[in-house]
Amino acid sequence: MSAPASRRSVLAVRAGEGRRRRDRLAGEEPMEVRVADRSGRTIPVAITMRTPGDDFELAAGFVIAEGIVAPGTITRIAHCDDVPEEQHFNVVTVTTSGEAVLGEARRVAGTSACGICGRASLDAVEVRCAPLADGPAVASEVLLGLPGALRARQRVFEATGGLHAAGLFDAAGRLLRLREDVGRHNAVDKVVGGAALAGELPLADRVLMVSGRAGFEIVQKAAVAGIAVVASVSAPSSMAADAAERFGMTLVGFLRDDGYNVYTGAARILP
Amino acid sequence: MSAPASRRSVLAVRAGEGRRRRDRLAGEEPMEVRVADRSGRTIPVAITMRTPGDDFELAAGFVIAEGIVAPGTITRIAHCDDVPEEQHFNVVTVTTSGEAVLGEARRVAGTSACGICGRASLDAVEVRCAPLADGPAVASEVLLGLPGALRARQRVFEATGGLHAAGLFDAAGRLLRLREDVGRHNAVDKVVGGAALAGELPLADRVLMVSGRAGFEIVQKAAVAGIAVVASVSAPSSMAADAAERFGMTLVGFLRDDGYNVYTGAARILP
Repeated sequence: MSAPASRRSVLAVRAGEGRRRRDRLAGEEPMEVRVADRSGRTIPVAITMRTPGDDFELAAGFVIAEGIVAPGTITRIAHCDDVPEEQHFNVVTVTTSGEAVLGEARRVAGTSACGICGRASLDAVEVRCAPLADGPAVASEVLLGLPGALRARQRVFEATGGLHAAGLFDAAGRLLRLREDVGRHNAVDKVVGGAALAGELPLADRVLMVSGRAGFEIVQKAAVAGIAVVASVSAPSSMAADAAERFGMTLVGFLRDDGYNVYTGAARILP
Repeated sequence: MSAPASRRSVLAVRAGEGRRRRDRLAGEEPMEVRVADRSGRTIPVAITMRTPGDDFELAAGFVIAEGIVAPGTITRIAHCDDVPEEQHFNVVTVTTSGEAVLGEARRVAGTSACGICGRASLDAVEVRCAPLADGPAVASEVLLGLPGALRARQRVFEATGGLHAAGLFDAAGRLLRLREDVGRHNAVDKVVGGAALAGELPLADRVLMVSGRAGFEIVQKAAVAGIAVVASVSAPSSMAADAAERFGMTLVGFLRDDGYNVYTGAARILP
């Protein structure tokens, strides 16, 4: 348990021929996030299915993205010891010197959706975000190099074929942080959480690249972290594009080695 | 709003040349699910980001998969009219003649993870599931035809490139139900919910095929619906394989036109 990957016997069938072999599978386990705040309360805020590893970063990134804990107020992150021993690594408590902010809908739902209608969601995120900075100007050639740079460093994915990746780049295309997870959102939380714990927020000069689709929640998490340029290898959703436009973010989709689509904020891309 | 896809202007860059065009994007909006039970309570149980469409099926499939409502006890599903008009279609209430079952962890977390450690999660799901039936025997050739059959019917995906699909097949490879969503889990909830509303549960003779990864929650949802064979075009996670083994389910991964891997329950696949 608690391994980023594990081995299992598999029957591989190719061209009608079956053959037993050992394969590596991406690790997946539930993790509970709790927040302890200055009122002395310890509040369970979410259970997420995640790939074990970088759990403190994941917990930090999640509570910041959700607006539950303000960046810079985290004083301690620890595994819990008031649960049975085999579960220690699956419960993480984030201690804040401030007050935990739990909206009514969030308390009920625990998802990363902020409200009921799209407009309410956008309003809620906008309230939490400082306006995005001008952000970096990114050369088209640099953009085209990001998918290859991400793949080259995706170690667990190569072995299991089952993990999503999120990478934080500078405007010259240098990969600064890479995290992997069975969940796309978790990979972004790990990247943002790691940067937050290193005191690097807001990430105004950075480019976030994700290996999967760009849904609303990816754009939301990037906006909260102050990231002005988000690129994905796959399609954005309608609400992701609406949110990116409203936040003044550059959103790039279908980024492959030979081209890409710019949905919003094309001015930051240099030909 | 509330469209499965919408149009947006995009700057498409290929081989260094940029060109403006109109593209279709997969729709994504939050939807709140509420449960009204015989005690007279109406309880918000989740907010999920989903592609509008088949919302009643999604709500039914979700509350059944989570064990909140027993299949066969649903007496009514309706959009809410006690919220502002533009949000009507984003709030769905499922009425049950039984009692809503909300676990402590679930009430806090609202995710589809059932507990803290993997073992607790598996226990929780197992309690809710009737033992899986022997299930169908599926010819290898039939399996190899599923990805093509799914793609051929994936209409919104073709236009947007941004949707996951779940398909319910019989053992001869006939596609009985197909649903699409920006979320993999939602697509499965829509398929299972639709079958539940048609009185078809348990789906003992069916094969479920998903377009993305097979994580624990996909296996969980299939088990609750009584499905004994699950196939995915991508990788399973470690916990998905553990769960499939424990439930006696056949789990197939990396299913492509020319081959596949069998992780558990190989006896149901005929050469």
